[in-house]
Amino acid sequence: MAAASRESSNTVLGLIQTPANVAAAMIADGTLTSESLVSAYLERITQREDAVFAFAHFDPEYALTQARARDKAVPLSPLHGIPIAIKDTIDTEDFPTEFNSPIYAGSKPTRDAACVAMVRQAGAVVLGKTRTVEFAAGGQNPATRNPHNPVHGPGGSSNGSAASVADFMTPLALGTQTGGSMIRPASFCGVFAMKPTWGSVSINGVRVNCPGLDSVGWNGRDVGDLALMASLYEIPGASDLPPIDLPNLRIGLCRSPVWQCADSATQNALDEARSRLQSVGVEITSVDLPEEFSAIPKAVATMMRGDARVAFLPEYRMSTDELHTDFKADVENRRHIGPEMLSEAYDTAAACRAKFSDVFQDLDALLTPSAPGEAVLFEEGHGDPVFNVIWSALHAPVINIPGMVGPTGLPVGLSLVGPRYSDARILAISKVLSPALEAT
Amino acid sequence: MAAASRESSNTVLGLIQTPANVAAAMIADGTLTSESLVSAYLERITQREDAVFAFAHFDPEYALTQARARDKAVPLSPLHGIPIAIKDTIDTEDFPTEFNSPIYAGSKPTRDAACVAMVRQAGAVVLGKTRTVEFAAGGQNPATRNPHNPVHGPGGSSNGSAASVADFMTPLALGTQTGGSMIRPASFCGVFAMKPTWGSVSINGVRVNCPGLDSVGWNGRDVGDLALMASLYEIPGASDLPPIDLPNLRIGLCRSPVWQCADSATQNALDEARSRLQSVGVEITSVDLPEEFSAIPKAVATMMRGDARVAFLPEYRMSTDELHTDFKADVENRRHIGPEMLSEAYDTAAACRAKFSDVFQDLDALLTPSAPGEAVLFEEGHGDPVFNVIWSALHAPVINIPGMVGPTGLPVGLSLVGPRYSDARILAISKVLSPALEAT
Repeated sequence: MAAASRESSNTVLGLIQTPANVAAAMIADGTLTSESLVSAYLERITQREDAVFAFAHFDPEYALTQARARDKAVPLSPLHGIPIAIKDTIDTEDFPTEFNSPIYAGSKPTRDAACVAMVRQAGAVVLGKTRTVEFAAGGQNPATRNPHNPVHGPGGSSNGSAASVADFMTPLALGTQTGGSMIRPASFCGVFAMKPTWGSVSINGVRVNCPGLDSVGWNGRDVGDLALMASLYEIPGASDLPPIDLPNLRIGLCRSPVWQCADSATQNALDEARSRLQSVGVEITSVDLPEEFSAIPKAVATMMRGDARVAFLPEYRMSTDELHTDFKADVENRRHIGPEMLSEAYDTAAACRAKFSDVFQDLDALLTPSAPGEAVLFEEGHGDPVFNVIWSALHAPVINIPGMVGPTGLPVGLSLVGPRYSDARILAISKVLSPALEAT
Repeated sequence: MAAASRESSNTVLGLIQTPANVAAAMIADGTLTSESLVSAYLERITQREDAVFAFAHFDPEYALTQARARDKAVPLSPLHGIPIAIKDTIDTEDFPTEFNSPIYAGSKPTRDAACVAMVRQAGAVVLGKTRTVEFAAGGQNPATRNPHNPVHGPGGSSNGSAASVADFMTPLALGTQTGGSMIRPASFCGVFAMKPTWGSVSINGVRVNCPGLDSVGWNGRDVGDLALMASLYEIPGASDLPPIDLPNLRIGLCRSPVWQCADSATQNALDEARSRLQSVGVEITSVDLPEEFSAIPKAVATMMRGDARVAFLPEYRMSTDELHTDFKADVENRRHIGPEMLSEAYDTAAACRAKFSDVFQDLDALLTPSAPGEAVLFEEGHGDPVFNVIWSALHAPVINIPGMVGPTGLPVGLSLVGPRYSDARILAISKVLSPALEAT
């Protein structure tokens, strides 16, 4: 490699490794241009996209056009000039939104989803759309590979959002979670993800399959970048995180009612987390959830598949041949989910939700698995959301903290969970805990 | 009036008074064309729109083009060739969707909302968009007048949907309900409305302000037409309503925890309903809801205004000057709705929801007020949803049954309410009860 080229590569590497909140400050004070930053990410995408397949739609020229326009404008927000990728189940006015479904091939909405409109208005550069499990709900997997090892998948359904951030193709990406679609892929790919309290971000313009669970979330490579997004969406307290006193922090280690699904990678990660956090002075307690919480995973499955009967009826009617057999099974209600089952599932989740704050009487947050283990093989699909659905049903805010590594060298994340509306507090706690968990 | 013209008027009157399910059968057997039916409604709209102001968008030529195309095709469903109007908070691919907000003036989505796509695929003729309270959530009222007396309003937020069906401009209209936006205007306008069990119809493409409450609903002029729509959306049992044995029917008369809001029109309507139903052999019991249900109205207000902080943030950011001050108050959280209040409101609603089926142990359905009284004066706004929000929070199916008349000659409706997922049963019960309630 010639010296000039190596120097260019080093610059690119430096830029794409810079957290978004730091890069934004540099753009704001004139020491960095959005064009340079976006160019660095575009170079990375050019190098890596043929191996990772993170993007469903991507337009380098258009990204540069946006960046140059940002550079001519007065910075509008701490997101000004920063590239971001958007999951392809979220409407964008400038790219098609196809849901990884042949039914919507080329379909282009005229309006941004609310979550995208706010990002754009804040001055971010929309890089493109990231690949997703079909409708973020089942069916067809995308081609996206795990950036750490292409033999493995990135997890889903926010496959491309997690993979693109993990592979330094973008500092930030928007995704969605119904059961475990933000947290699990973040764990598999070794990046941060935030699934805020249900209802914290408008879902207008986002594909809705299960309105009682569906949430917008985001990936980043540090907690500061998660907070940047939370602040943009005015999640209470996110723009001014509360101070956390590490030695007085009380974390509940929660194996969760589905611990039997954890393999040795996840078991070891939780053990390792315990000793690392104890070594920095955090008080760790083992926590069991109340007995009735064990019914949540089955309840969530009922809610998701029961609501899918309604969600996929339009596509079933209009494009039966192009609808994946998974969704046909939902519409035809082949699981025989009756009204009583559905009511009971919703009521079970709601009753546990009302009791969940009691768990935190002597605790600041829970630390619990993000996935059963390392990333599954690509052919095996998008992984099991079993460790995520409980917190989704509880409407709890969750942050995936990467840092642990499994036996085959792949990342293993852990979930920091708080009671509803404690988003700012779990961001603040993640910020102080993540350095200890990321240590190798 | 010349004989020919009178004859034409009679034909028009006959056609527009024909229930949709009857007209559809005539279209299917070739005794009526969609073009004739649609022409009759267009003539009515031409005569009356300048007094009623039901439509935000309306295109007679386009309606006729659709109707002629329907007449050339093999009937696809029991909705084939039938005109329908769509509330202007629901996306349509052929009309703008403006939410009665200057921010969205001329904004035209490229995709139909799921509920519209199914109507269109079934062969209905989309007449146009009906006027709505701003974003179906507050702010600006539309110009729509009560068809029975223009000094009065039609109620909201589905103002134009209720008024257009009441005034025979269309046999069917789609609307939405968060708190009371389907049932209250139907009561004010003297038409039927159905708000199905929450989650029964996909909300993709519908403006979402409060995802735990927002529902698609519809207006019609008889129960058969409500069932036609419920059947299209595959609400379980709606295509084959269960038989109802009138003398064995047990109806609970429920004054509800907000009875003090009922004026004499509503008080008399409930009394009159009792005697009419008893006279046809129905067993009537007075029912009080459990004490804790009294907390629901306040909880719903908290949910709606708390969620509006999130829902209107994008418009607040992008178009502050054009956003109504009502929504600015929500985004700025001037009511100081904190996380604890919001959690408690959601939990209160959910806890009552789980208990609501107990109310029906010895009852088939509840009959309860649809509004505090007759339609309010136009200047007074869109009316009070206080009698509707309880059932919305309980996710219960509700049908407004018209028939009663208040002291100033305006309609007063009553709500038939069942437990979650009893939609088909309350349709069937409404079908047998409504003739008695409609008698004068």
